[in-house]
Amino acid sequence: MTSELAIGIDFGGTSVKSGVILGGEVIDTAPPIATQDFDGPDPLIDAMLDAVRSLRERHPGIAAVGVGMPGFVHFEQGVVHNLTNVPGWERFPLRDRLEQRLDLPVTVDNDANCMTYAEWKKGAGRGTRDLIAITLGTGVGGGVVANGQMIRGSRFGAGEVGQMSNDWQGKRGHYGNLGALEDYIGNREIAEMAQQHYARAGQPKTADEVTPQALSRLARAGDGIALGVWDEVARRLASTLMSCCWLLNPHALIIGGGVSRAGDLLFGPLTEHLYAQLSDPFRENLMVLPARFGNEAGMVGAGNLALEQAGYPVED
Amino acid sequence: MTSELAIGIDFGGTSVKSGVILGGEVIDTAPPIATQDFDGPDPLIDAMLDAVRSLRERHPGIAAVGVGMPGFVHFEQGVVHNLTNVPGWERFPLRDRLEQRLDLPVTVDNDANCMTYAEWKKGAGRGTRDLIAITLGTGVGGGVVANGQMIRGSRFGAGEVGQMSNDWQGKRGHYGNLGALEDYIGNREIAEMAQQHYARAGQPKTADEVTPQALSRLARAGDGIALGVWDEVARRLASTLMSCCWLLNPHALIIGGGVSRAGDLLFGPLTEHLYAQLSDPFRENLMVLPARFGNEAGMVGAGNLALEQAGYPVED
Repeated sequence: MTSELAIGIDFGGTSVKSGVILGGEVIDTAPPIATQDFDGPDPLIDAMLDAVRSLRERHPGIAAVGVGMPGFVHFEQGVVHNLTNVPGWERFPLRDRLEQRLDLPVTVDNDANCMTYAEWKKGAGRGTRDLIAITLGTGVGGGVVANGQMIRGSRFGAGEVGQMSNDWQGKRGHYGNLGALEDYIGNREIAEMAQQHYARAGQPKTADEVTPQALSRLARAGDGIALGVWDEVARRLASTLMSCCWLLNPHALIIGGGVSRAGDLLFGPLTEHLYAQLSDPFRENLMVLPARFGNEAGMVGAGNLALEQAGYPVED
Repeated sequence: MTSELAIGIDFGGTSVKSGVILGGEVIDTAPPIATQDFDGPDPLIDAMLDAVRSLRERHPGIAAVGVGMPGFVHFEQGVVHNLTNVPGWERFPLRDRLEQRLDLPVTVDNDANCMTYAEWKKGAGRGTRDLIAITLGTGVGGGVVANGQMIRGSRFGAGEVGQMSNDWQGKRGHYGNLGALEDYIGNREIAEMAQQHYARAGQPKTADEVTPQALSRLARAGDGIALGVWDEVARRLASTLMSCCWLLNPHALIIGGGVSRAGDLLFGPLTEHLYAQLSDPFRENLMVLPARFGNEAGMVGAGNLALEQAGYPVED
């Protein structure tokens, strides 16, 4: 069962990674491009095109190019509305600009949708028709599959799990939303929560001492405060995911991103608090799964999504 | 533009209503059946079949029969899993039992899905492909349309907006879920909230004096406590609907049920609090609309859904 080759590009705030995708594998990569070294879209697009060309020289059979962008994208038009951490990308017609200079079909989508597509078609969610994927990092993002289709919503914004509220009277977030999940369990917010708990206990710690990795080590060594932080993270996440389940009754929740590397420290209390808040039809059929893909999710998803959009079958 | 005729049956905890559906209209009805007069499914099904036969005598062209049930339904199998307020309906194969005695295709779905389908195809949501419908009454129910399809989820449970949490540390609800919307803005809970506020202000009121209708009258007369109750209802509802919007980016939110009859007392603060918590792509395209259908929603939706399932086109 061979598949077509695609190039997947994961455009991040730090670096732009490009790779050749075959099924669920990245079989070759170009050197990463440092995003901040470039002043605006045009020189960066030149560097992306160089990467694509170098990959095509080694793999002449490339059928499509997909790009995952860290911001709001008009999926049908391939226009980048804006990027959170990269200036100069307001209302930028990225798909058309790339297609003008490549004789290949190009697809542009939000990076969280690319991750979701990768996990659905080639990762932890293979074989399901209804899933929600969540990535836990500096921010909390996600994507939705229902009825065996990506759900993008009326303006291609769907999947923003991190902006959902877990407290109607909570803190006011970036978009005016009260109690956004991301404002409690983002990387930095977990560190702040931990610092507060340690300070209150008379054991002040620096931010470096309470990274997710450090909190995992502390918790595994039996530190009660670190265990308590993970439990609060799990309970807040469980609340939002429980709401997602009541609304969409998914078959799988797929959880990735740096914070998810806490493993059973997170997944243990998360599944406990989640299952305790669902009735049978919602619980019986629900899998809570760690993501298959790490840093490669964006490339794998973008490449496969580009193949699908170009009319090639993408098997799960 | 003529449509096929269907019979829509709205099975409620109090009465079973049957009507002949043409497009978005109920053009004839059978006398309602008092649900609690019957001891178990079999005699009630006999009464439902009598109603169907009497309607077919007057309208020989009936093409399909749809039934909306107040409980959990396995949509593909047409099996009623259980009903909240009617005993004897555990794992009951309603579709097959009706089809055995009618030479017509029968469809059985959850009542909130029928309401959603009615509003989508024939009501306030016509012409949209992504909407969420919510009904506010004793309970809070709902349904989801995305990508121009009903979203039922992996076990046909999707749409339970009332079970979504607006407070991760809120009260524990019927299914163990903390902070379920329904447990704050159901009919009874609104009355309790109002009674508490009035008692605290030294103006105790009976439950009859704080029904949604009574609270509307009081608020329109300028009563500060009643206005405050409506604002809290609106803010809690806005929090949950805001979360729905971030997850699904719908084009329309359609709000029906008895509590929604408060009109601008509810819709005013609701839209204010909702729009204040969304970013542009989520807000710009979002309509918050009162439901078109009242008591007829279940019949209209069930009838049209039955036509769709039987292969007839249902136009919006």
